[in-house]
Formats: sequence, structure tokens, C-alpha cells
Amino acid sequence: MTGTNPYELHLDRNAANYVPLTPLSMIKRAAHVFPDRTSVVHGARRFTWKETYARSRQLASVLERLGVQTGDTVSILAHNTPEMYEAHFGVPMCGGVLNAINTRLDADNIAFILDHGECKILIADREFGELVTHILGKVAYKPKVFFIDDPECDNPGPAIGEKDYEALIADGDPDYAWKMPDNEWDAIALNYTSGTTGNPKGVVYHHRGAYLTAVSNALDWNMDKHPVLLSNVPMFHCNAWCFPWTVAMKAGTFVCQRRVSAKVIYDAIADHKVAYINGAPIVLGLILNAREDEKREFNHIVNVMTAAAPPPASVLAGMEREGFRVTHVYGLTETYGPSVVCAWKDEWDVNDMDERARLKSRQGVAYTAQEDLMVADAETMQPVPWDGQTLGEVFCRGNQVMKGYLKNPRASDEAFAGGWFHTGDLGVMHPDGYIQLKDRSKDIIISGGENISSIEVEGVLHKHPAVALAAVVAKPDEKWGETPCAFIELKPGSSVTIEDMKAFCRDNLAHFKCPRDIRFIELPKTSTGKIQKFILRKQLQDEVGDSIPL
Amino acid sequence: MTGTNPYELHLDRNAANYVPLTPLSMIKRAAHVFPDRTSVVHGARRFTWKETYARSRQLASVLERLGVQTGDTVSILAHNTPEMYEAHFGVPMCGGVLNAINTRLDADNIAFILDHGECKILIADREFGELVTHILGKVAYKPKVFFIDDPECDNPGPAIGEKDYEALIADGDPDYAWKMPDNEWDAIALNYTSGTTGNPKGVVYHHRGAYLTAVSNALDWNMDKHPVLLSNVPMFHCNAWCFPWTVAMKAGTFVCQRRVSAKVIYDAIADHKVAYINGAPIVLGLILNAREDEKREFNHIVNVMTAAAPPPASVLAGMEREGFRVTHVYGLTETYGPSVVCAWKDEWDVNDMDERARLKSRQGVAYTAQEDLMVADAETMQPVPWDGQTLGEVFCRGNQVMKGYLKNPRASDEAFAGGWFHTGDLGVMHPDGYIQLKDRSKDIIISGGENISSIEVEGVLHKHPAVALAAVVAKPDEKWGETPCAFIELKPGSSVTIEDMKAFCRDNLAHFKCPRDIRFIELPKTSTGKIQKFILRKQLQDEVGDSIPL
Repeated sequence: MTGTNPYELHLDRNAANYVPLTPLSMIKRAAHVFPDRTSVVHGARRFTWKETYARSRQLASVLERLGVQTGDTVSILAHNTPEMYEAHFGVPMCGGVLNAINTRLDADNIAFILDHGECKILIADREFGELVTHILGKVAYKPKVFFIDDPECDNPGPAIGEKDYEALIADGDPDYAWKMPDNEWDAIALNYTSGTTGNPKGVVYHHRGAYLTAVSNALDWNMDKHPVLLSNVPMFHCNAWCFPWTVAMKAGTFVCQRRVSAKVIYDAIADHKVAYINGAPIVLGLILNAREDEKREFNHIVNVMTAAAPPPASVLAGMEREGFRVTHVYGLTETYGPSVVCAWKDEWDVNDMDERARLKSRQGVAYTAQEDLMVADAETMQPVPWDGQTLGEVFCRGNQVMKGYLKNPRASDEAFAGGWFHTGDLGVMHPDGYIQLKDRSKDIIISGGENISSIEVEGVLHKHPAVALAAVVAKPDEKWGETPCAFIELKPGSSVTIEDMKAFCRDNLAHFKCPRDIRFIELPKTSTGKIQKFILRKQLQDEVGDSIPL
Repeated sequence: MTGTNPYELHLDRNAANYVPLTPLSMIKRAAHVFPDRTSVVHGARRFTWKETYARSRQLASVLERLGVQTGDTVSILAHNTPEMYEAHFGVPMCGGVLNAINTRLDADNIAFILDHGECKILIADREFGELVTHILGKVAYKPKVFFIDDPECDNPGPAIGEKDYEALIADGDPDYAWKMPDNEWDAIALNYTSGTTGNPKGVVYHHRGAYLTAVSNALDWNMDKHPVLLSNVPMFHCNAWCFPWTVAMKAGTFVCQRRVSAKVIYDAIADHKVAYINGAPIVLGLILNAREDEKREFNHIVNVMTAAAPPPASVLAGMEREGFRVTHVYGLTETYGPSVVCAWKDEWDVNDMDERARLKSRQGVAYTAQEDLMVADAETMQPVPWDGQTLGEVFCRGNQVMKGYLKNPRASDEAFAGGWFHTGDLGVMHPDGYIQLKDRSKDIIISGGENISSIEVEGVLHKHPAVALAAVVAKPDEKWGETPCAFIELKPGSSVTIEDMKAFCRDNLAHFKCPRDIRFIELPKTSTGKIQKFILRKQLQDEVGDSIPL
């Protein structure tokens, strides 16, 4: 066939008509077209695109001089600071792979990551100086270490490493002729999943996927030109959902912060005209529960993109009243962050708040850059009926799916079995083609043979006016196998009795789904605001281990 | 190297993590997510995304049944109608290559195109029934023919072909399992350049380039969600700059029209809330010179994207007063239409209208999806200084450059020599990195050894209040070799003497640049509103051939 198709004769790729897709093209263009616009803001520091591009090239040239070659890993342990932002460009500019590490991990975990990723260079914020000392005592292969001396850091630890970041890049070449990737399939980033059991897995992103996710972020969020973004997602979490690259593409402004708080959010909105905020649902809570002295006036629409847990109606209503427009997305580390969006339809605007919240609580449809999304039987991979009822596993495929797990072909093969990425999440497909998550596979509680969705029970608990946050997990039970146990964080100043809460559940849930055990506590959360259910689960197992007769 | 890079081991492409880029994904998504939104409007006809997707699949299934295979050409000779829109999806859905043909070409030209492109199927609007009869008398290989019976057609010719389009697709399968391209480098469209000399060349587009241009159109024009577009660019001209695919991607509405006029434009704005219009500069003239009874009220911003000739200050001022916002782009058939944009900077808003027009008259910077743009010495390919003065040829490279010319390896090699696409346009690079065209190579007038830019002379003529349009071409001259000759179309109701016009030129131009010959005529234009300078040139050559002694 090929020989006879005239469209394949003498019409090959060449240097004029083919360039690998890479987010690096985006910063080059931003610096060329909008050199003097503000690129990055952090405390008192301001950079322009010309400067951020030059600093990224300086970093790249120095890394190359230090021996970093294509496919070498450069790790960074830092908050959202300008150095972290620049690493998103400077590391891949010399062919390196950026490994941004979750700062909440312990020394053992991080040492595992550095060894597994074969880290050559580690750049760490001084806040983590002591941690780095411990890590270096544990790693088998010692990376070269440099430190970030951020003036915004109010709790610096010891300065571990050869020199600080500014001294490091001061030797660099701002005109360094950086490398386009040889192939758009080359790795750009390595992001470890937090993995509640076993060792973390290293998710590999390629240039093509990072480019297309960055594009799709702008398209699916309908971002305006020069968006000013406050990323409450840390850059060590799916590269802040690829937004550092989106902001360069749109020549916007990336507003950094070391720690999320209501004051940080309102100040960024008022001082920097932040119009886009991404973050875990905890951000919505911070905004709504801000004290009056933390709030600031603003008169533009602020768009908030949130993932991980659907915002309840009362939260959405509150956000709208305060001038925020919430977009609900869903994704995993393996899908470059968000790859599913609850694409809003104009005709839904006429609905009342409860109905709007119900519609928006669904995870939705594939991103523009993602090809396919389905809910299917996990065994047969046959799609479930579009009835909003039948539970199945969520599968996706397309250009927003990772290259695979580093040095873990078995896990990669399992994840890609049957030509689809297995998310491990359970959900339903609604008649209009929107998916809704019902649970992580491991979050399903099986009580007396019946499946109980912890998300469903949490949804009911969230409707109670005194509840700020709720997490429901399985508690081992002699008779039922498992029963739901509810951990509840109450709103400040609220109070309610356990008996009243149980009565509320019985009024709103099938009896077998009602939590038999309800506890009021402050919930353990990750740095990104996700509730750490595994801690709650472990606590219950430890208790039960003590009490159930062997 | 490859063997030792852990990022290349067991991390290959597979069905879960790689999908070819193609605009076909865009209509699938529009139909899935926004099935009931209006996709296409034409006169009294309205379609939804569900319908347009189904009709495109019907077309694809029928074409496949007729024997169309991957790499087979399907030609269409039509105005901007729903059938033409559907062909942009239906033809590639079965692996076919869409060849949309300029309806202003004569039978010889079109017969050449059909034979050269090895056309299997021809779909033609009834308006061109007689033309098709002539064409079929000239082609060596007879395609199967079908006709479009558009109710909006007020001058239908004979119905040539087996059946009409509606009857054709009525047999089709709305659920046809259409083919993703095997490779994103596969051809999607074949567009012949108008070629003023010799036979036209067949520019081949691939799925990847069409996808990325569609994306970049939305990004670089900062299009909002669900854009309603009136394309005054015919779809046979660079596939309407790839906007049919952009509109599907953004689930907008594509407003069709058979013929551009002031009334069509204002009606579309008022009746369909058109907020985006693309077209040749003639569109600006139509809007500004509209009669009061053709104008309609509207109270939204209408964005106009225009190419081919920079709009003069007076036109821009007029457009702004009327509620239009003009974006100036540049490109060629070989670059999928626009691939350069005069990206506007907020800080330019404070300038007066003349300065704003001067800034906007520049062609600008590479599109987001195009990689590189330079002005360089045509011989050495060394970039010219960024001084806004030094003339060079415009070169570009990247994913918005064609696959090549069909069955013309020599022309392809010339176009891609040195790893850059040679545009054949001459321009300068300004100190801020924005290019400005000065002329087509062949439009430079060489008089007494001095280069005269016809664009510069036209720019002066356009400043005269009586001038609607002006074209300056070289007139053969015994003494000087060439001298500039100006053809001028006056505004309705205006009058000016040739002597006054010459005096105006002398006041505004170096003496050697002043046209020695000035004529008031109605200028010959293409269907897209481009002035046909080659007709003017031929006229002068014919005259001179008669008068210059042999």
C-alpha cells in the first residue's frame, strides 16, 4: 500500500516542517514576544519572561557543565518558588528529567526516590536542610547537592550542599543554546505517586504529553490571555498539573507561595489580580472560612479549578456569592494531572443551586487533549450502561497518559492492560456521557457482602450544617467483615452529638450504610489538602488488632 | 546511549498512551459533550454537533463503500455550505484526502488539479454544473460525480452527477466506525496554490499540522468558549485557515455563506451573534462602506482576523468605532493559513490611532504552534539585523509547515532548502522581534537599479481620502528598466485628478518611487478579495509589447 500512495512519496519529515512538541517552545516564545511582562512573582521578587528565560538557560548550562546528559535525573525538593518554576524549563533544556519531590515525605521515602530515579543533582530548599542531611545518610548513590536560599523562608535549616542556587546559576550562560528533545517521546519529568502501600512508583512524563496537557489546560478552562495564576497545587504534585507550562504558553504570571492560607489567597487576588487558582478542595474551604481581616476586596471573576473531591452545593453557593467560579476536574499523576473536566453547559445556569451542584459534582468528560474515557467492567472491559447507576472502573486512553512507570515494566503492563489506562477509580456513566466517581477501588467498604461507597456516606455527612470535612473508611468487624467508620471535622464553633449525627445518617442513608462508629477529630491531610485515609485506616486496624480475639 | 537511558526502557508507545493528533478527535468530542449545541448555520438550515457528526460519518461510510481508501483524493467544488463543512470531517474519516477547489478557477485549471491529484470522487455545487460539464470533457481520469443542491443557491446550473449529496449520504451509516489516521503524518488535505505562472502546486496538509493549527487559532486569537464564527475565507482557501476544525474543537458555531457582502456580515452578527470573522482585507472595506440599510445593531465585540494586506490607520480607526477588534495575521497556503500574528501588547493601547495602526500593520511573530520565524539573506540564510530596515526573505519552520508539494519533489526540496520554508516574501525584522512584510519577491519594482517596494507606494496611496484600493506593479520601461504603475479604485462618489494624485505622491514619497502612470479602474480580485496583480502586470506587458520598438 505505502508504495502506491502518492501522499507518502517524497513528503517526509524534515527540519523545516517538523519539530518535536515540547513546553520548552513556550518559554522561548513568551520571552521573544512578551519579554517585559511579569512571569513569576514571589514575595518581594518579580521576574519578567526575558529574565525567567535567561535564568532557566543559565541553570541548564550549569547542569550540563555538571555532567547532566539526556535522560539524567535532576531532583528538587522545594515549595512553589521561582527556582522550582525555572527548574521546569532549565532541567529539560539540557536533556535532564525533572524529579520534583513531595516535601512531606520522610527521609526513607525520599532516599528511595533518589536512588530509584538515579538522581545526579539534588536542589533543596533550606527549610529542608536537616531532612536532606538524613536523606544523604541513607542514599546509596550520592547526588551533587545545592540549596535554595529563599528570602521568603521563615524557618531555614542548615545550608546543605556546594552552594546556593543563585551562586550556582550566576556561573551560567543566559544565551545557552539549549537542546530541543531529540524526540517528543523523550522524558521531561518523573513524578512519584504517594503510594499508600509498598514503594512509590515513578511516573514518567514525556515532552509531547506535557505540551498537550499545557494546551488543554488553557482550552478546557477557557483561559484568557495573560492569565495570572495562583497555583495552590505544589509543583511537586504532577508538576502543578502542568500549569507552569500553560502559564508560559499564554505569557501569563505564575504567583508563587510557600504555604497556602486564606490570607495568601486573598492577598494574591487583590495585589496581583490573580484570576485563576488551582488547588485541592481545601482551597475552597480556606476561602469560605476566611476571617474578615484576612479577606480583601476585588472586583473581577476568580476562576477556581479544583480536583479530588466534588464540592458540595453549600460550598459552591458560597463560592459564587464571593465572586468565584468553580471548575471541577479529575485526573491522576499518571494522566499529567487533570484530564477530565466537568465541562459546564450554558443551559445548566437556569437550575437551582442544588441541581447545579449535583451537575458540577460529576467529574465529567475527557479533556480536549485526552482521547477517550470510559466506565467499564474491570474484568471484561465492556463499557457499563450509561445509566448513572452501574458501577465500573474508570479507564482512559490518549496523549495525556504517562509514558509508564520507571523501571517497573510489570506495573506499566498492568496499568496499560487491554490498551487502556486503568485508573483504579470506580464510577458510573450518566446518560449524558459524563462520568461520576463513586470511589477508589480500595475505598469501597464491603459490609455483609454489600458494597458501600465511602463517597456516598461522606456526601451525606457533608450536608449536615456542623460538618466541615468527613472521611469514611472501613473498620474491620467480626460479624459484618467491615463497617463504615466516620471521622468528622466540625466547623469552628459548631457542635453536635454523636447520637444526633447517627440519627441524621439514618434519615438520609440506607441502614446498612450508616456509620456505626462516628468520631470528631481534626483530619490528617497531605500538603495538597487530601485527607490521608490510610492513616485513619491504620488507626482502626491497630485498635482492632488489639481488641479482636486472635 | 539509548540502551543505558532508563527512560527509554519498557516505556514505549502503546494503545493506552499514544493517539495520533487529528482534528477528527475534535468533532467526536463536540458531539459527545455538546450534542445539542448548534454546529453549523446556513440560511434556514441549522445543525447540531450530534447531527453534523452523524452526517460526516454517513458521508465517510458512503465514500468507503465507493472505494475511497487511505490516500485517495476526494475533491469538492463548493462555497461555504454545510456539505463543504461536513467534507472536512467525512472525507478524512475514511482515510480520504480532502481537495477543496477554488471555484473561480477555469475548467482547464480544475481539470489539471483533478488529474494531478488523481481525484476519485468529485462533489460539486449545482452553481458550477456547466463548469463541471466542461471539466469532465477535459480530465484524463473520470471521477465519480455528485452534486450539492443547496436551497440557498439562486443560480443553479444543471445537476451533473449520479445523485445529490443528501441522497448520497442518506444511504450512509451515522454510526460508522471511522478510521483514526494510522499516523498523524498522513495527509488530510490537498490545497492547490493559485500559481500565477505555470501549473498550480498541490500543497499537502497532514493531520498533525491541521490539529495544531486549529489549536493555535484558538490560542492566538484568544477565542472564548463556543465561538460563533463567520468565515469569509472560503473553505477552498487553506481550508478556511483550518477554522472548521477550530470551531469543532471549541464546540462553537460555523456560519456559512455563499457570497460575502456587507448585508451578510451584519445579518450574521445580529442574527447569530457572530463574534469572530476571518477574511481578506476586503471584509473590512465591506463593513466600513456598508450602507445604513445594510447595517444592523449589535452590542458585543466582534473580532476580525484579517490577512494579506495590513489595514491602514483610517480603516482600523473606523473598525474600532463600529465595535470591531482587528487582529492582523499572515501566512501562506504552505503554512496552513495563518502562522504569524501581530500579537497585541496591552501597553500599546495608550498610543494614538496612527501609532497603533503602524504597530498593527506589522505581520508580527510566530503562532504558538509554529516554531521559528526569521528574516534572512536569501543566499546565505543569515538573519538580517533587527533594525526594521534591512530587507531579507521571510523564512519559517515548525509544525505549521506543509508536508510538501504533491508529486513535485523538486519544488518541495527548493521550498525546504536549508531546513527552513522559503516563503518568497520579503520583509524586515523590527527591534522588538516583529516582522513586517515589504513585498513578494516578484512584487519588488527595480527602477534604475533601485528597489521600490510596491507595498510602500500602495501604503501612501491608501492615505489619500479618495482611494478605496490601490495596486502598484512594475511597468516595463526602456530607460529605467521598470517604473511603478498605480491602479487605483476610488471610493464611491469620490473623485480626484491624476495630476492631484501625482502631486500627493511627490509630497509623500521619494521621487524615484512615485508612480509615473496612474489609472483609475475597478481592480480585478480573487474570490477571497486579493487583488490579482498578475492581471495588471499582464495588461502592462501587453501594452508595452505593442509600443516598445523591437
